[in-house]
Amino acid sequence: MNRAILDQALDAIRTRAYFSAFPESPSPRVYGEDAAPAGKAAFEAWQNSDFPVRTPAARDQVTTERSPYGIPLDVRYPRVTAGSLEELLAAARAGMPQWRDAGPDARVDVVLTILDRLHKRIFELANAVMATTGQAFVMAFQAGGAHALDRALEAVAYAYAEMTRHPATAVWERPAKGEPVRMEKTLTAVPRGVSVVIGCTTFPTWNSYPGLFSSLVTGNAVVVKPHPRAVLPLAITVQACQDVLAEHGFDPHLVTLAAEEDGDGLAKDLAVRPEVRIVDFTGSAEFGNWLETNATQAQVFTEKSGVNPVVLDSTDSFRGLTANLAFTLALYSGQMCTTSQAIFVPADGIDTDEGHKSFDEVAAGLATAIDKLLADETRAVELLGAIVNEAVRGRLEGAHEYGQLVLEPRALKHPAYPHAVVRTPALVALDASDIEVYGRECFGPVTFLVRTSGTSESLELFRRLVTERGAMTAAVYSTSERVLAAAREAALDVGVALSENLTGGVYVNQSAAFSDFHGTGANPAANAAYVDAAYVAGRFRFVQSRRHL
Amino acid sequence: MNRAILDQALDAIRTRAYFSAFPESPSPRVYGEDAAPAGKAAFEAWQNSDFPVRTPAARDQVTTERSPYGIPLDVRYPRVTAGSLEELLAAARAGMPQWRDAGPDARVDVVLTILDRLHKRIFELANAVMATTGQAFVMAFQAGGAHALDRALEAVAYAYAEMTRHPATAVWERPAKGEPVRMEKTLTAVPRGVSVVIGCTTFPTWNSYPGLFSSLVTGNAVVVKPHPRAVLPLAITVQACQDVLAEHGFDPHLVTLAAEEDGDGLAKDLAVRPEVRIVDFTGSAEFGNWLETNATQAQVFTEKSGVNPVVLDSTDSFRGLTANLAFTLALYSGQMCTTSQAIFVPADGIDTDEGHKSFDEVAAGLATAIDKLLADETRAVELLGAIVNEAVRGRLEGAHEYGQLVLEPRALKHPAYPHAVVRTPALVALDASDIEVYGRECFGPVTFLVRTSGTSESLELFRRLVTERGAMTAAVYSTSERVLAAAREAALDVGVALSENLTGGVYVNQSAAFSDFHGTGANPAANAAYVDAAYVAGRFRFVQSRRHL
Repeated sequence: MNRAILDQALDAIRTRAYFSAFPESPSPRVYGEDAAPAGKAAFEAWQNSDFPVRTPAARDQVTTERSPYGIPLDVRYPRVTAGSLEELLAAARAGMPQWRDAGPDARVDVVLTILDRLHKRIFELANAVMATTGQAFVMAFQAGGAHALDRALEAVAYAYAEMTRHPATAVWERPAKGEPVRMEKTLTAVPRGVSVVIGCTTFPTWNSYPGLFSSLVTGNAVVVKPHPRAVLPLAITVQACQDVLAEHGFDPHLVTLAAEEDGDGLAKDLAVRPEVRIVDFTGSAEFGNWLETNATQAQVFTEKSGVNPVVLDSTDSFRGLTANLAFTLALYSGQMCTTSQAIFVPADGIDTDEGHKSFDEVAAGLATAIDKLLADETRAVELLGAIVNEAVRGRLEGAHEYGQLVLEPRALKHPAYPHAVVRTPALVALDASDIEVYGRECFGPVTFLVRTSGTSESLELFRRLVTERGAMTAAVYSTSERVLAAAREAALDVGVALSENLTGGVYVNQSAAFSDFHGTGANPAANAAYVDAAYVAGRFRFVQSRRHL
Repeated sequence: MNRAILDQALDAIRTRAYFSAFPESPSPRVYGEDAAPAGKAAFEAWQNSDFPVRTPAARDQVTTERSPYGIPLDVRYPRVTAGSLEELLAAARAGMPQWRDAGPDARVDVVLTILDRLHKRIFELANAVMATTGQAFVMAFQAGGAHALDRALEAVAYAYAEMTRHPATAVWERPAKGEPVRMEKTLTAVPRGVSVVIGCTTFPTWNSYPGLFSSLVTGNAVVVKPHPRAVLPLAITVQACQDVLAEHGFDPHLVTLAAEEDGDGLAKDLAVRPEVRIVDFTGSAEFGNWLETNATQAQVFTEKSGVNPVVLDSTDSFRGLTANLAFTLALYSGQMCTTSQAIFVPADGIDTDEGHKSFDEVAAGLATAIDKLLADETRAVELLGAIVNEAVRGRLEGAHEYGQLVLEPRALKHPAYPHAVVRTPALVALDASDIEVYGRECFGPVTFLVRTSGTSESLELFRRLVTERGAMTAAVYSTSERVLAAAREAALDVGVALSENLTGGVYVNQSAAFSDFHGTGANPAANAAYVDAAYVAGRFRFVQSRRHL
């Protein structure tokens, strides 16, 4: 990892053209023959061990993980409690002046080295993400490894650009009668304080890296509070941070892990501490809203939940449409904040390249595409992964209570992990009036096909859902420029990113670092986006000193 | 006003070298012979009139101003009450989609035209600022006119840079087996919502323009809620905005004036409305903190109050030091958020170019410099202006109760305005232990000379005051590089801008647009700075649409 990569990243955030620094294919042709087995072995070495991470004020241990695959974990982490926070936060702050004084270039070098170190451990990380989240291996490698690192680099690039957008020292010369007034003005980026990153179960790294690394590179200390079910990926991350910081002569406690006993509610205690000036959170709308309302001493960045809409109006590729949506709904059993939830279809159907399709034919087409995609069980489990928890499983098993089941979920056996709960998605048909059902987030593999009076009503409901419930993604399928324009207008009005006519290998639930912003910060699903200037600019402040020359 | 000016401003925010677009001298050589009398006449035409500004939902009028100079005002403004907000905010929002769709370039053209229009009315504005705030004319012209416009342009430049930091439409091409995947991705800057600007009495334009114009140019509608005592400068401003918007075919209600009856507490009602997504405030710490805690649906930018420290350690120009500080303390009777309040002096004095000076000699030197600066009454009133309200006058008259009065305030007669309350500053000597006195903001012309055990204690108290009470400015005088380095370190640690050894024509209470940030956002005095990227980047969001090519 070197500065040439940073320069490419800086170019990419300016052009927002395609860029990726971390190869997403776990193929031996890319990473070498040894990488996969060595990474797996490294992961397995953590099983049933005391994880070696430096957590000041920890006086106990916790073991809170349970793999959706049934992969044994039993890793013991230092436990942080409300009573340890005073000491933990003091330790976190201790190294900040030195870290600040090192300046943006030195900090960026250290953080690039951390990303490189994590990249070297990408197979270990991928195994940890897979085991804790239930993602299939390739997805864990990509989303949890390569793409997470790309998002981290994107955040670092934005932060570096912001810290260096003007010279650190400038000469100011004001014309005056006689001699001009000349002063030297020095601007130093200073950290805001301690930054807390609250991780989630499903994407422990991908959702944590932008906040973690943009806070760190701007001079803040970072306390990482993982979800009790997905600690290991972030423990590995914190370990890498601490190692690299120490190797470069910085205080390793600039990044710490705050693992808690499940149910301790440590995030609440942490988030309102006066030392904490930045909070990054991914998780429920309820707790996200609580943070926004209560952690007013901090800058709070939240990604909460939403109800992602799709408007079907017409298509020139019914096969492409159904195949594309089928993939989105199947991937990781829809356990993504970006998975579509409400698909609006006119009651009298849509025009397609295969002729007019009634509502039921659209539903059947989508069901068929899902069936076809998941026909081969061995391949299917590599798309679906495992159901992450009982709540998701419960909603799926009760899907028939939501409405008319047009695709019934099936239970699959995972060939390698007999204890994994693997399920195919459910499709439920509803009427537009059932907004109390399809208008609530139903995280996981239950998708609603909503019968509307036509595309006008579909777009109205699209607006209503995004405004009232929020959405991370939205999509429209139409061959009509008028409808596309109306959908774009609606998306701008309610503030949601729009994917139009995706029928190929790009999916509405996926966002590409350096090109697609993840979230908009303009609707209730999230108050920020990965990654734009607003996401990083407030993580530090400029302090000026001036003197005559 | 044209794009060439914007380009210069964009350069200036990159280099932070000297730049000013609006000449600060009210001289006829700069503005022409007619400008001053025409501007005064324009101001006088508003006296005892119904001010013509378009305020939807206003059903009554208010007359709330009382000039510290006794200049008759009696201007009647449309009254907004809590009951009008629904309708007012709906009207504010109505024009936003068209304003958004116009795009950054069209919006910036309109806003530059507004600034140009205001510049053409600068003498009228200056008279209005002078009459309402009690500033002397030249200061009202500079701070309330030229410098306010420079800060506005600075904010517009930052906002434009943020909105255009990448192309509005980019082609994204991802390598793939076979044909690459090509997509067109469009990023549209969308407004956050309605922006509320809450003005203050002392700097109605200077403190309102950065928020007003950066919110407007990023696509938001802006409701301007002036302080009841200083409405006219903002009414003129809103009128200019409405005129130019209408001339360009935009909804004039994109900028509205919300004048209230004194005591109505309209700011509270406005700030927590769900339509309101941005709040800019200048005023008391109490209400600023209330906004930060309660207006959690909005981005809140506050400039509150602080206790600005000065550390005197040693100097190579005692005359320069005392003259410089005397000017700061006298200007506008210290009624600036940037005026120094606590001057720390070692009990056994300081080394100077005139030999060692005891604490009492330092105090006497400063008192003499103030006396000398204000010896000529006619010139003195042009520096001091008038005392803005009874509270300031009361604190000044009770200054002897704070401690030992080392410079007694004098009452001056204003030759032109017999009813103006004009006073020279008071200096009060205290001990370091009297922190309950000097550690509270004492807005106005009372300054504390604090006897410390030495520069170490001075720096400790400097840290403590800024951390606990906040500060907008700070200064140090020392001939020792070690002391200067310690002061810089302290300033970075506690997050305050530092002026070092100002002995000439630059004053700690003045900040230059495009070069000095006003406030840091890193201590309790303000949560934001004029103007940096963090101040503008969150005022809009990017909404993306993507489609295959």
